[in-house]
Amino acid sequence: MKKYNIAVVGATGMVGNMMRQVLEERNLPIENIYFMSSFRSAGTKIKFMGSEYIVEELLENSFDKPIDIALFSAGGGTSAKFSPIAASKGCVVIDNSSTWRMDAKVPLIVPEVNPEDVEWNNGIIANPNCSTTQAVVALKPLHDAYKIKRIIYTTFQAVSGAGMSGYKDLENGLKGEEPQKFSYPIAGNVIPHIDVFEESGYTKEEIKLVNETKKIMHDDSLRITATTVRVPVFNGHSESINIEFEKSYDIAELKKLLQNAPGIIVQDDPANNVYPMPITASGKDETFVGRIRRDDTVENGLNIWVVADNIRKGAATNAVQIAEELIKRWSK
Amino acid sequence: MKKYNIAVVGATGMVGNMMRQVLEERNLPIENIYFMSSFRSAGTKIKFMGSEYIVEELLENSFDKPIDIALFSAGGGTSAKFSPIAASKGCVVIDNSSTWRMDAKVPLIVPEVNPEDVEWNNGIIANPNCSTTQAVVALKPLHDAYKIKRIIYTTFQAVSGAGMSGYKDLENGLKGEEPQKFSYPIAGNVIPHIDVFEESGYTKEEIKLVNETKKIMHDDSLRITATTVRVPVFNGHSESINIEFEKSYDIAELKKLLQNAPGIIVQDDPANNVYPMPITASGKDETFVGRIRRDDTVENGLNIWVVADNIRKGAATNAVQIAEELIKRWSK
Repeated sequence: MKKYNIAVVGATGMVGNMMRQVLEERNLPIENIYFMSSFRSAGTKIKFMGSEYIVEELLENSFDKPIDIALFSAGGGTSAKFSPIAASKGCVVIDNSSTWRMDAKVPLIVPEVNPEDVEWNNGIIANPNCSTTQAVVALKPLHDAYKIKRIIYTTFQAVSGAGMSGYKDLENGLKGEEPQKFSYPIAGNVIPHIDVFEESGYTKEEIKLVNETKKIMHDDSLRITATTVRVPVFNGHSESINIEFEKSYDIAELKKLLQNAPGIIVQDDPANNVYPMPITASGKDETFVGRIRRDDTVENGLNIWVVADNIRKGAATNAVQIAEELIKRWSK
Repeated sequence: MKKYNIAVVGATGMVGNMMRQVLEERNLPIENIYFMSSFRSAGTKIKFMGSEYIVEELLENSFDKPIDIALFSAGGGTSAKFSPIAASKGCVVIDNSSTWRMDAKVPLIVPEVNPEDVEWNNGIIANPNCSTTQAVVALKPLHDAYKIKRIIYTTFQAVSGAGMSGYKDLENGLKGEEPQKFSYPIAGNVIPHIDVFEESGYTKEEIKLVNETKKIMHDDSLRITATTVRVPVFNGHSESINIEFEKSYDIAELKKLLQNAPGIIVQDDPANNVYPMPITASGKDETFVGRIRRDDTVENGLNIWVVADNIRKGAATNAVQIAEELIKRWSK
């Protein structure tokens, strides 16, 4: 079997670390692996499949060596500069920042939803925002069957979504320390503010959720609104999603559709207190769906509750799955 | 000025304690005050306006003495038994349990919304569910101006809403202890489950929110759906509310309406990170409204974010305000 050279860029961050772990777990056909970071973290030692690697500094010549796939989680600025360099050398970048997501020349991919979009990449593939990824995994089978007209998202987002510094803000906040990352204490609080505010009164996080959902689902006719909220949860995003369908549905059939859809585990047995929660979803690669119930206030309405590990499915796992889609096609 | 005899029933619980505190703060014209509880807590000493009181056991003859108003926060069973006894002796009960709320003969009151309903009481007035009260304070001026067609509630509810034992579950959970009150750990988690599940898949909390909103707003034509979620916040409920109006609106005018409405403080300056949060609403009697923005996915759509202290406005303060409405009418 053909093996590939893989790089992880931003290897020492929260998502970069998880990318390394998921690459190990899923046992990709790797020939050589490279870990890269900014000057600040270069030199860090990293274990991978039993061997020790030294994190190298990301430089303009880093992609002169043959690299097939680079998983980037190094922030928008780094991606804007280095993704085109890597791509120009024949490497395919799978980028976790928001830089390329809405670029019409860049596919935005969730493998359960639109894996075929890897085929038209020009050397850069965007990994969606964490809150979008889990949502579209749950929505795609429903959209295919009943055609979604309108979506109202309300999110409960974990601090790990803001990286190591977000995580530390909750950890330290629980000991009474002042926040460093968030505008306000997150311990014992909820903050209806993720990413920066736009003129419209919506945050960029809310706008990302709206636009990325449309792009991944290939449907600009979707009407979507969102309220995104940070909650004092270490890891695992939860989403309350209200949906209006074009077509009528049978609730038992709809649940079966979700049960049979890729990447989804239905946890929906209220009588036995079975429903998705961050503490049970954290550490898993699947998207968990529950509280599935008809919303009678509109024709063909539905309420669902969707939870996933935002660092795994929301970032690292999804990026590695995209790499797998590439490899599957290259190995044919 | 005429003075009144007041009783607080369930005086040692979280809401009962706050009722006492709010009665002090708002300086009601009190002649005699009585604190009552179950056998278990009877004998407890309580300070009120500088004097010490001994909590007496709630008995069938407790209302033989002349009591004008009894603020009940003693649970459904106690209210079902003792409210009619108190009422039969000429006392007006303001009850915080869910027992009487949907009884057609019992008014359900939020003084900013339907104070006139105190006039048709038959000795029992119901205090709404905490999540309902703050919602209708925010929705009433909007309903009056633009006529609401549909409401989608998603709540972020504090552990104090589950009383002292809910509060302790978070406190102890943060130290790694197992939950006693909730079905799962609430520290570092969110639980999409408040009160018990009905056959429909909705929880009683969600159904309360729907039905009580209609009753208080005097409008059964309202279409309302809800998802209620427990979050690891000690005190202060937050609500993401999506609204569809019958009539068109101007967003600046709508904000002004809210600013001028009773009991509301608008906190809506995203550019300066000003929005309502539980840590800033806790300890206050007002309902805080922010993140006010048009939802363009439907004609005349709106998203708002509403936060209030669920023990104060959601329970104790609202009950005392109802008492004030009674006293205002009696003193004419």
